[in-house]
Amino acid sequence: MQISLETLRNIVGAAHVITGDDVANRQEDWMTGALCHAGAIVRPADTGQLSAVMRACFELKQPVVTHGGLTGLVHGAETSPDELVISLERMTAIEEIDRVGGTLTVQAGAPLQRVQEAASEAGLQFPLDLGARGSCTIGGNIATNAGGVRVIRYGMMRQQVLGLEAVMADGRVVSSMNRMLKNNAGFDLKQLFIGSEGTLGIVTRAVLRLQPPMPIEQTALVACPSFDALTELLGHMGKTLGGSLGAFEVMWQNHYRLLTETTGRHAPPIPTDHPFYVIIEGVGSDEARLEAQFSEALEQALERELIVDAVIAQSDTQRAGLWAIREDIEGLVKGLAPVLTFDVSLPIVDMQHYTDTLETQLLQRWPNGRLVVFGHLGDGNLHISISVGSHDPDVRRAVEALVYEPLQALGGSVSAEHGIGIEKRAWLSTCRTSAEIELMQTLKQALDPHCLLNRGKVLA
Amino acid sequence: MQISLETLRNIVGAAHVITGDDVANRQEDWMTGALCHAGAIVRPADTGQLSAVMRACFELKQPVVTHGGLTGLVHGAETSPDELVISLERMTAIEEIDRVGGTLTVQAGAPLQRVQEAASEAGLQFPLDLGARGSCTIGGNIATNAGGVRVIRYGMMRQQVLGLEAVMADGRVVSSMNRMLKNNAGFDLKQLFIGSEGTLGIVTRAVLRLQPPMPIEQTALVACPSFDALTELLGHMGKTLGGSLGAFEVMWQNHYRLLTETTGRHAPPIPTDHPFYVIIEGVGSDEARLEAQFSEALEQALERELIVDAVIAQSDTQRAGLWAIREDIEGLVKGLAPVLTFDVSLPIVDMQHYTDTLETQLLQRWPNGRLVVFGHLGDGNLHISISVGSHDPDVRRAVEALVYEPLQALGGSVSAEHGIGIEKRAWLSTCRTSAEIELMQTLKQALDPHCLLNRGKVLA
Repeated sequence: MQISLETLRNIVGAAHVITGDDVANRQEDWMTGALCHAGAIVRPADTGQLSAVMRACFELKQPVVTHGGLTGLVHGAETSPDELVISLERMTAIEEIDRVGGTLTVQAGAPLQRVQEAASEAGLQFPLDLGARGSCTIGGNIATNAGGVRVIRYGMMRQQVLGLEAVMADGRVVSSMNRMLKNNAGFDLKQLFIGSEGTLGIVTRAVLRLQPPMPIEQTALVACPSFDALTELLGHMGKTLGGSLGAFEVMWQNHYRLLTETTGRHAPPIPTDHPFYVIIEGVGSDEARLEAQFSEALEQALERELIVDAVIAQSDTQRAGLWAIREDIEGLVKGLAPVLTFDVSLPIVDMQHYTDTLETQLLQRWPNGRLVVFGHLGDGNLHISISVGSHDPDVRRAVEALVYEPLQALGGSVSAEHGIGIEKRAWLSTCRTSAEIELMQTLKQALDPHCLLNRGKVLA
Repeated sequence: MQISLETLRNIVGAAHVITGDDVANRQEDWMTGALCHAGAIVRPADTGQLSAVMRACFELKQPVVTHGGLTGLVHGAETSPDELVISLERMTAIEEIDRVGGTLTVQAGAPLQRVQEAASEAGLQFPLDLGARGSCTIGGNIATNAGGVRVIRYGMMRQQVLGLEAVMADGRVVSSMNRMLKNNAGFDLKQLFIGSEGTLGIVTRAVLRLQPPMPIEQTALVACPSFDALTELLGHMGKTLGGSLGAFEVMWQNHYRLLTETTGRHAPPIPTDHPFYVIIEGVGSDEARLEAQFSEALEQALERELIVDAVIAQSDTQRAGLWAIREDIEGLVKGLAPVLTFDVSLPIVDMQHYTDTLETQLLQRWPNGRLVVFGHLGDGNLHISISVGSHDPDVRRAVEALVYEPLQALGGSVSAEHGIGIEKRAWLSTCRTSAEIELMQTLKQALDPHCLLNRGKVLA
C-alpha cells in the first residue's frame, strides 16, 4: 500500500484501522466466500473522515475499494493487497424522516431492511426490496442501481434516490442532497454515481423517496399453459389491475420443479407439470375492492385459458409460502451446485426462443447440464442458473459464451440488475458500442484521473 | 461565424442552409417573441449529416445552438451572430413501434403530440404531456427533462427514456439506443444528456417507453377551505386512489379567479371565493369500479371537510372545460401583461408561508402588484406569475430576488421543470453548492472542451 497505517489512524483513530488476520478473516464475496485480500480496512465515522482518507489517498495515489454489505454478485468488491478498503460499516444512521414530504435521509452504510423498517414505522414505505435486504446497504443499492421484486410498480433504485452526497477521488465532497421531486436546476449529478459501481465516487449519504404506506396485497400463484399465454397474461393483468399490479414474477417449470419436487424444500401448491408459473401480486388500499378486482382479473384469465391453475393466498403465512419458493436462492444454489448464475435482459418476445436454444446448446455440450430460469418478466429480465458439473474458469467462459453471445443480436443486456464488476467486464462490449465505452472512459478519466476508485471494475 | 456556408452546403445541400432574412425572420423564443440572431441555420437530414456538421464545427471551433420546438421558457435557445443553429426540423420520423415490448423509436425533432398520437394508434400511450405538446419536440423534452401534468403518476421525461443517441461536440455519435427496461451494463450514459439543455451533446434519436393504453378518467374540480386541508386531501387521495391518482393540480384562488371572473375567459364551475381549487383526476381500466372508488374518495373528503365544494365532469366536454382553466396560459399571460413567470420547487409544508410572504413583500414594494399561483402540488412544484407593471431587467431582477432568495433556506429549487438556460443562470448557485457547480464544469470540460454546445447556457 502507498498509504501508511499511521496516516489512516490519525484520521479515524487506531480502533478503526483493521489489519493482518482481521482483514484476511473477512469475507469479501457472498457468492464465492472469498476472503479479503486488501492491505487494510479503514472505517470512517462520517463523511468528513472519509473525505480526509480520500484526500490522503489521492496525494499518495493509493487505490481504494468501498465495502458495503458485500452481497454483490459480480465480484465488484474484490480487493488486492495493494488496495485499501473503505468500509461504511460505521456510517449507518438514519438521519431524518420527513413524513409530509415523504423523504428519508440516511448514511450510505445503513442496511436496506433498516430503512424499510424506519419508513414503515413512520407510516410510509420504502419500496425497493430484494432477498439480500438484511445485509445489503443503501450505498450498495445506489452504487449498483439495485432492482428486485417491485420494479414493475416502483422502478429500480435510481427512481428512489432524490439526492445524494459523494466523496470524489480527490477527497472533495459533492453534496447534492436534494429533497425535491422535481429539480431541473443544472445537471442531475446524482445520476453519475447511481449504477457506476463505486468507480466515479463514494456515496456517503442519500435522500430517499418514500411512498404511501405498503398497500394491502393479494397474492396468487398461477400456472400458464404456454409462453404466449404468459405474455398475454402479463398484458391482461397490466390492463385490468393498472397501477395495482405489484409483482409479476415468472418461474420456468425447471425452477418451480427444482425447488418443490426435486429438492423437497417446498410443498408444491399446484402440480408441477405446467410449463410456466407466475406469482402475481395485486396491491391497493381498499381490501374488498382489491379482492374483487384481483379475483375477477384471474377469473377472466382462466376463462381465456391464459392460466390453467391458480391458488390465491388466504393468509400472510400462505403468502409467505408462495414467495419462499421464488426467493429460495439458497435452495437454488445447493440444488444446482456448482452453479453458474446469470442476469440478463432481452425483449420479451424473444425469451422463449432464447431459453429453448440455450438449453439445447447446453445439453449438446454437457449432456447432464441443467438450466433453471426465473425472472421479472414485465421488466424483460431473466435470472438463469446453469449447472454443468464444474465452475472452472474455462467452463464458465464457455457457458458465458452460450448465454451472452445471442444477446447482442437481440439488443439485450449482459446485466439487467447485477452490474458488471469484474465478472462481466469482458462481455461489456457485446452490449455497449465502442463509442459508449469510450465515453465511459472519458468520464472515468475526468472524475478519477489516477484510477483510484474500484480499479478495474466495470472498465478494464 | 468560423464555418463557411460552403462547408455546410456541401454536407446538407444548399436548400438546407438558411441565411440572411430567412434567419432573422424566425422567432427563437416563444415567451418574448425574440427573433433569431444566428449567423445561419443548418437543417441536417439525419444523424450522419448532423455528425458531419459537428465534426466541421469542432475543427473550426464554431459554436452551435440546437433548435427544436422553441417552446422553452428560460431563453435556452437564444443565439448570437457568431453562432450556428442546428435545427432538427427535418429529423421528425417515428422509426419504429414495438407493441409487445412497449417502446417507440423516434428522431429527436418529432413533436411530442405526434408521438402521443402514434402511441395511441398502436393501442398504447406515451404519458408525458404538457401544454406545448403541438410544438415542443422529443429532443427538447429530453434536453430539458420536461415535466407536465402527469408527473405524479408517470414521472418526468427522464423516466420515459430508455435509450438515446447523441452527437458529441467533436462529431462522434454515441448511440445508446437501449430498449431494455433494466440495463445495468456499465454507466447509464443517457442520463448525461437528459436535462443538460443541449450543453453536453445533441440528442438525435431516442427510444421511449410506452405505457398501457390511456386509462379511463374521472375528473373533478374541488374547492379546499385551507392549505392544511389541501395537503391532507393530497394524502387522502394518494392513499385511497393509490396508483389510480392521475393528477392533482392546484390553483390558488388568485389563479382561478383571474381566469374565470376577472378576465371572463371561463365560466366558473364552482364559486370563486374559496382559497384553493384542485383538479383531481382518477385513472383506471374499469369504468364502474373507478367511478365508485373516485366518488367514494371525494365523499369521504367532503365528510372530513377537506373539500367544501366539488364538481365531477360528466362528459369529455366538461372534462376539457375544467382543464381549460388550468391550462389557459394565454389567458394568464394576457391577464397579467407584462408578466414575469417562475417555476420553483419547495417542500409542501413550506408553501403557504412562502407564497403568503412573497405576496406581502411584493405588495410592499409594488402596491399594484399581482401574484398568481398554480402548480403540481404533489410534485412540490409551484408556477408563480407576477405582474408589477414592468418587465425591465432591473425590475425582473428585484422580483427574482423576492422569489428565489427564500428557497435556499428551504432546500428548494429555482427550477422545478423549466431548466436554467440563461434566465436562471445567475441564481443557480443559490440552490446548488459550489462543489456541485465545479463538478458540472468538470463534465462540461470533459465532453465539450472548446465550449461549442449551447455556449453560456446553464453554466456561465
